[in-house]
Parts: sequence; C-alpha cells; structure tokens
Amino acid sequence: MSKAAMIGGGVIGGGWTARFLLNGWDVAVFDPDPQAERKIGEVLDNARRALPALYDRALPPEGRLTFHADLTEAVAGSDWVQESVPETLALKHGILPAIQKAAGPEAVIGSSTSGFKPSELNMPGTRAIVAHPFNPVYLLPLVELVGDPATCTRAAGILRGIGMYPLTVRKEIDAHIADRLLEAVWREALWLVKDGIATTEEIDEAIRMGFGIRWAQMGLFETYRIAGGEAGMAHFMAQFGPALSWPWTKLMDVPEFNNDLVELIASQSDAQSEHLSIRDLERLRDDNVVGMIRALRRTGSGAGSVVRAHEESFPRPGERNGLPITATRQVPVSWTDYNGHMNEAPYLEAASLATDRFMQMIGADAAYVAGGRSYFTVENHVRYLDEVHAGDRLTVTTQVLSGQGKRLHLFHRLWRGDDTLAATVETMLIHTDLSTRRSSEPDPAVSERLSAWVSSHAGRDADGAGRFVGQTARRT
Amino acid sequence: MSKAAMIGGGVIGGGWTARFLLNGWDVAVFDPDPQAERKIGEVLDNARRALPALYDRALPPEGRLTFHADLTEAVAGSDWVQESVPETLALKHGILPAIQKAAGPEAVIGSSTSGFKPSELNMPGTRAIVAHPFNPVYLLPLVELVGDPATCTRAAGILRGIGMYPLTVRKEIDAHIADRLLEAVWREALWLVKDGIATTEEIDEAIRMGFGIRWAQMGLFETYRIAGGEAGMAHFMAQFGPALSWPWTKLMDVPEFNNDLVELIASQSDAQSEHLSIRDLERLRDDNVVGMIRALRRTGSGAGSVVRAHEESFPRPGERNGLPITATRQVPVSWTDYNGHMNEAPYLEAASLATDRFMQMIGADAAYVAGGRSYFTVENHVRYLDEVHAGDRLTVTTQVLSGQGKRLHLFHRLWRGDDTLAATVETMLIHTDLSTRRSSEPDPAVSERLSAWVSSHAGRDADGAGRFVGQTARRT
Repeated sequence: MSKAAMIGGGVIGGGWTARFLLNGWDVAVFDPDPQAERKIGEVLDNARRALPALYDRALPPEGRLTFHADLTEAVAGSDWVQESVPETLALKHGILPAIQKAAGPEAVIGSSTSGFKPSELNMPGTRAIVAHPFNPVYLLPLVELVGDPATCTRAAGILRGIGMYPLTVRKEIDAHIADRLLEAVWREALWLVKDGIATTEEIDEAIRMGFGIRWAQMGLFETYRIAGGEAGMAHFMAQFGPALSWPWTKLMDVPEFNNDLVELIASQSDAQSEHLSIRDLERLRDDNVVGMIRALRRTGSGAGSVVRAHEESFPRPGERNGLPITATRQVPVSWTDYNGHMNEAPYLEAASLATDRFMQMIGADAAYVAGGRSYFTVENHVRYLDEVHAGDRLTVTTQVLSGQGKRLHLFHRLWRGDDTLAATVETMLIHTDLSTRRSSEPDPAVSERLSAWVSSHAGRDADGAGRFVGQTARRT
Repeated sequence: MSKAAMIGGGVIGGGWTARFLLNGWDVAVFDPDPQAERKIGEVLDNARRALPALYDRALPPEGRLTFHADLTEAVAGSDWVQESVPETLALKHGILPAIQKAAGPEAVIGSSTSGFKPSELNMPGTRAIVAHPFNPVYLLPLVELVGDPATCTRAAGILRGIGMYPLTVRKEIDAHIADRLLEAVWREALWLVKDGIATTEEIDEAIRMGFGIRWAQMGLFETYRIAGGEAGMAHFMAQFGPALSWPWTKLMDVPEFNNDLVELIASQSDAQSEHLSIRDLERLRDDNVVGMIRALRRTGSGAGSVVRAHEESFPRPGERNGLPITATRQVPVSWTDYNGHMNEAPYLEAASLATDRFMQMIGADAAYVAGGRSYFTVENHVRYLDEVHAGDRLTVTTQVLSGQGKRLHLFHRLWRGDDTLAATVETMLIHTDLSTRRSSEPDPAVSERLSAWVSSHAGRDADGAGRFVGQTARRT
C-alpha cells in the first residue's frame, strides 16, 4: 500500500487527498485548521460521487485517511508529500525544510504552487518540485511538473498511476504554462467588465457557448490548424498573424486593482450566480465535467484518453457464486432519471459491457472483430427486479445457457451491492460474418473456449430465463 | 418558408449555410469561387452527420440550396443576408452597398467579421450589423451581435429559431468579446513557444487537460467564483487580484511577427497533428463537440441548454400505420459500436424515449411525477430484426397491448427509414407510488386517457409480442 502526506487541506489539498485516496492510497493529512477534517470530508463527498463515474470499471478499494496534529508524523513513510499551503513564499519557505527533514530519501515532495518557480521555492537542502494541479483535482487530469528532471520523471509515473496527466515544463517560468494563459484572459476580461463592454455573465457565455467547447477537446493550436484548412498552419499564421499588431493589441496594460474593480466584478458575479450555493455550483461543475470527459472517452481525446488508459490498468475482477464477474462499476448520476433511480436503458448498457467482456474471454475480441467476425445480439430480455441508485456498486455475472454452432445464449445477473439481485438480462447472440452480415460458424478456437464455459455452467439454475414478458412463474 | 442569402461560401459562409439549411431554411449562395459548391458540399457532409446528433428529436426537413452567379438574384427575397467575405475592409466596403441595394427593407444584413466594428463596416446608406459566429457554425451556438439595437433584437429572434445563442455586445469594440480573449491567449501562447517554454502540443494539453473542460461549461468568472468558496467573488478577487501586478504580467508586449515565428509554430503543429488530415480533425472535433454538448444537455448548462430549448420548439410528429409516433430522430455516431452498426443498448434508449413520450400523452407527465406518482418499467424484451447505422432516421411507434389497473403493456416498433422494421421492444410497466415505491392505482384521469388508447388499439396485430428469448414462431 502506498502512502501520501498532504500538508495543507484546503480546496487543493482536499482535492489531492481525494485523488490519492480513491485510487487506493493511504493519505495522512496535516493541517492546523480545526475545520480541516470537515472541509476535506466535503471535498471527498463530491469526489466519491464524481470520480468513479468517469470509469466503466470499479476503482480500487479506498485507502485509509488519517489526520495528524504533527507534520513529522504525517510525512513519515510517505511515497509522496504534497505541499498545498497558501500562496506566499514565506509560508512555503517555513514548511518545506520541515517536510524535507521528515521525508524519506525516495519521497517525491511536490508543491501545488501556481506561481513560484522551483528555484524560488527551494532553500538550501530542500528538493521540492512544482506539481501544480487544477481544481477539481479529483477530476481534471492536468498536473504541471517543474524541477529536477529525474524527480519529475518519477513523479510522472506516480501521477499516471492515479489517473492524472503530468506535463513537464521545459524551463522554469513564473506561473508555469496554464496560469500564464489564464492570467492573460483574466486581464482582458477585467478590462471588458471595467469598460462596460460586457458583464461577467456575458463573458462567461462568450466562452462556454463558443471557444470553450473547442478548447476542452483540442486546445488552441490544433483548433486553429483546422481553421487554416488544407493549407495548414503556416497559412493560418500568414492569414491571422498580422493581427498581432492590429489595433486591439493596444489594451495590454494592467487594470488598476482597487475596491471599485472588486466591487464591480463581485456584484456582477452575484447577479449571475448567487441563486446557486458554492456546493451546488461544485456539483453542477462536476456533473458537467464527468459528462464531457465521458464523451471524450469515446474518441480517446484529451482527458478521455487519460481515463481510458488508466482504466486499462485496473485488475480484472474474479468470480461471484461460481460465475465470472464480467462487469463491475459504480452507478453514475447520469444513469439516473426523473424517477430518482437508474433508468431502464443503462441496465442494458451494463449488460452490454458484460457481453463485450465475455466475448474477450472466449477470444472473440478486438482482433477477432478486425479479422471480420463477430457476434451480433438478436434478443435481450431485461427483468427489472429492484431499484438501483447513483453511487451504488453494480456487479454483473455471466452464465452461459447454451453455446453451440452459431448461437450463444447468455444470462447476466446484475447485483446491487453485496446481496441484491437488481435485474437479469437474457441475451441471444448469433455469430456473424462481418463482410456478408450473415450468420456463420465461429472460429474453432472460439468454439472450444465457449464449450468449456458451457460444460462448466451445465445444470446450473437460471431462474427467470426462458420467460415471456408478463410471465411471473416458470413455465412448466 | 424563410430564405437566407450567403455572400461568401468559405468555412464560415459554408457553416452558416449548413446551420440555416438543416433548420429548414432555403439558402441561396453567392460566391465567385468556382470551388464554392464543392467546398460547401463538404461542410454540409460534416453538418448532416453532426448537427442532428445534438437532438433527441428530428430536425425539420432541409430547405432548398441554390447557387447563384449574380449577387442580386441570391439576395432577392431573403429574410437574412450574411456577408462572410475575407476579412479586409476594402472587400466588405465593396460588397455591402450591393447587398443593401438588393435586399428588402426588412432583411437582416449580418457580417461575419471577427474584428471590425459596425461603424467601420457601414458606409452611407448601408445598415449591416455584426453577426459573428464561431467555427463550426453548425454546432457552436454563439453569435456576437453588434450594431443597431432594433435590428439586433430582430436578429436575435431569428438566430434562436435556428438553435443559436445570440449575445448582444453592449458597446462596439475592436474584435467584440470572444476574440479579444482569444487574442490575449494567442499572444501569450506565441511567447511560450518562441521562448522554448512549451511546444504547441504541450500548450494544447495544458488547455484541454485542465481549464478547457472547466470553461466549456461555466466560463471564467463562475469557475473562479467556485474557487473563492463560500466567501464569494470579492474574497477571490482579494486573494488573487494582486497577481495583476505580479512579475508575470511583464510579458505583455507583442512577439515580432516574422518568418522564423511562422516556421517554428507551423513545424511544431505538423509534428503534433499531421498524422490526421484536416477532414479527419474536423470530424474528430465534431464528434467531441456533439458528445460534450449532449453531456451538457442533461444539466441544462451552456450549449446544452440552448439545444434543449430549441428542441422544445420542434413540432410533434403524427401517426404511422395508425399508431402514434412517439419518437423520431437521426442516429448519432455515438450510438454505434465496433461492429459498425447501432449498439444493442441505444435501441432500448430510443424505446425509453418513446415510453416517456407516451407517458406525457396519457397525462403521466413531469407534473404528475412531481406529484408523487409514476410508471416503473419492470420488463423489456428487445428483438433486433435489422441493423441500423449512423445517420439513419429512426421512427418509433407505440401500440398499447393492455392497460388496466396498475399494469401497462406496450409494444414499440423501431422503423429504420421508410419501410424497414429494425426492432420491436415489448415493455411492461407498473404504476408506482413514488413515496412508498410500491405499486398503486393510477389517477382516474390517466386511466381514462389510457383506456381510450386501449380501445383504439384493440384487436391490432402485434407480431413478435408475447414470446420468450429464442422463440422464433408465435406460440399457439
């Protein structure tokens, strides 16, 4: 079991805590704030609701969370120590030597600083690197790494293991990469509000109704590459580059930071958003981010590719009641409906994932499909036996009722938690030649593996199979 | 039938063409480029694949597309004329008076300019407004409107009717709102590449793995409001505002635009993206944008709220073979799987939408559910009769097999195109008290409406209903 120590448990420290803990790490928190435990608990509530929803397979069991009044005790034996104290150099200089002293020689010491360079952070004898994450840390994959190359390489491996995307910055610079871009937008946005061109809400709409969605999947340069068309990026630059000296580059000084500016921004922000509490906004943001990352999984783009690669590393589950577990996952909020429970369609989606997994198990996998053969589903009968709610753990077992020649007859059981049978899905499949789209005999190797399953499941009960809709008792 | 004229048919003019056409408008294109028809055809191919996928209901029938060698002919009788010629003032000044002369007095004349103000665009006698869209115009809802307030109000109504989000800018300013923010990021990004801090690919990752996803759903200010926590926006400003004068605000001048810079950016962009053609990149972008907007539909955030509101305005379809049409839609790419056809689960998703629609028709609607009563599905039997592919039009009819007391037995037929029965879904539902989660009698008003459907469907054939899985002939 790996251990991480969190020095500072605010929004960022709490997000780091959730990210490590939900990926199976033990986490020790040091934060003198008497509210730290409550605050981290709230972040964990959000994270437990959101992070598992990114995955089609269950995350590892949570690690152990402990709180410590003593920094040395929290840090001792940790593989990773993350400093997330407020953003002043004096505070960081006060705490990094103490961390260094308590940490083992192999521990990665990361700082969440958004602005300081490693050369500013470190004092004689300390060897922290910048490991700058983005809120919510439990959902967004990006971590900017800056500092000693060997340490950054080791850090990157650890971060990938908890589903993150480490980006090593080539040269240290104030504010790294992302926050430089954010600062540039922030300056411009403040000017627009101050000059009465747009309100905070209008600026948010200008972003999220337009380029924000583009950037979520491709970023800046690849988006502009498309705008350049077949002529490519040089053409795009030639066309738009001169804008660098166009009139609107004139507003590049800094608006004066004073009470009037703060009041203007704060009052507009209230008008825009105060109908929702911060907690409501966080959950809305998390639901949206989860939904969008799930959409990106399909094409393997951006954050979706990180989640897919991470999921591939999860261990495969074993058996239940002597039957193979072919799917296991936590139920995402997006699978629920207006009746306050899991909608009827995702039951079949879960069963479909289980069928896909069983196909892999008998060798009818991606390579087999690429070779021109597959199984097509011709019937599904879903019996809904109990309600399932967001956050429930769903486990699917698969039993082979028959499997000879072209036909394959499966019986999936969907279990909610430890002991409730929530649904059965009876599936009939026909082996198909993908070029003719007609039924065909499976490859002998597939038939052989299938036969082994048929034999091992022979004589098992399958209560609920073989019925028509509305038939409540077994046919005789 | 409304008519729009497109003056200029490049990427932006073609996108506008697709947006109007797929929303049922006739579109007349004037573009002297001999390749215009081919280029617009390519944009339309993309749009026909992507735009309908945003909706759970079918778009209206496409309007008529015509190409004209004569500007006056193209503009005549148009309700909307959109100028999308290249971004030089001389070109715009050359063409706007001709548009003005050919257009009727009620026509909205919009310019796609990303940089010019209405006071610069217009000449004596012309009355164009800025109507600045974002690529891909057929998917992204944002249009910035600048100019005469009455015209902008009228324009906004028309744009909402074609599923867009008009944002009226309070004061004219170079580059409006969004492109000011984009320019700010562009300047900073060019510096980062030029100084060797990051490559184009690393900058794209820094955006899409982090703040890009946040911005796609909430924009800048609401995102920072969350960061401020319960203390609110003033607290956030107080905490981060001073950064406006921190050292990293020093890089606010403009990198020199020269061949070295163009070459540097273009070569890095090639290394990052040239494994995909522009057409491939466009389709990838469209699939991602569609998937993310669909995720945002669920919470009604950003672009998702625009699509939902637009869809509500669609007319309800009528009957087919004497049965009510309860769902009709185009099949999105995201419903297909590795077998190259619609996956088994979305068949049930489509039937589930049909059940929801039937519930509304008998009065078991959102208000009824809010009152504590609903129908729960207890069984579904899906028979897959034929393959369905991305882009196919799917129409679902619903037949009531029985509906007395607590039980409701439905039979959905899923039609592909005009005459192929692609699946049947037999559904059993039980009326449920949402507080006890136990079966209960429906409201008499609901029972009464249901009875009328039962009577009207009595004696109808339902070939395929009442069977168990694997049963190929009717039971006798």
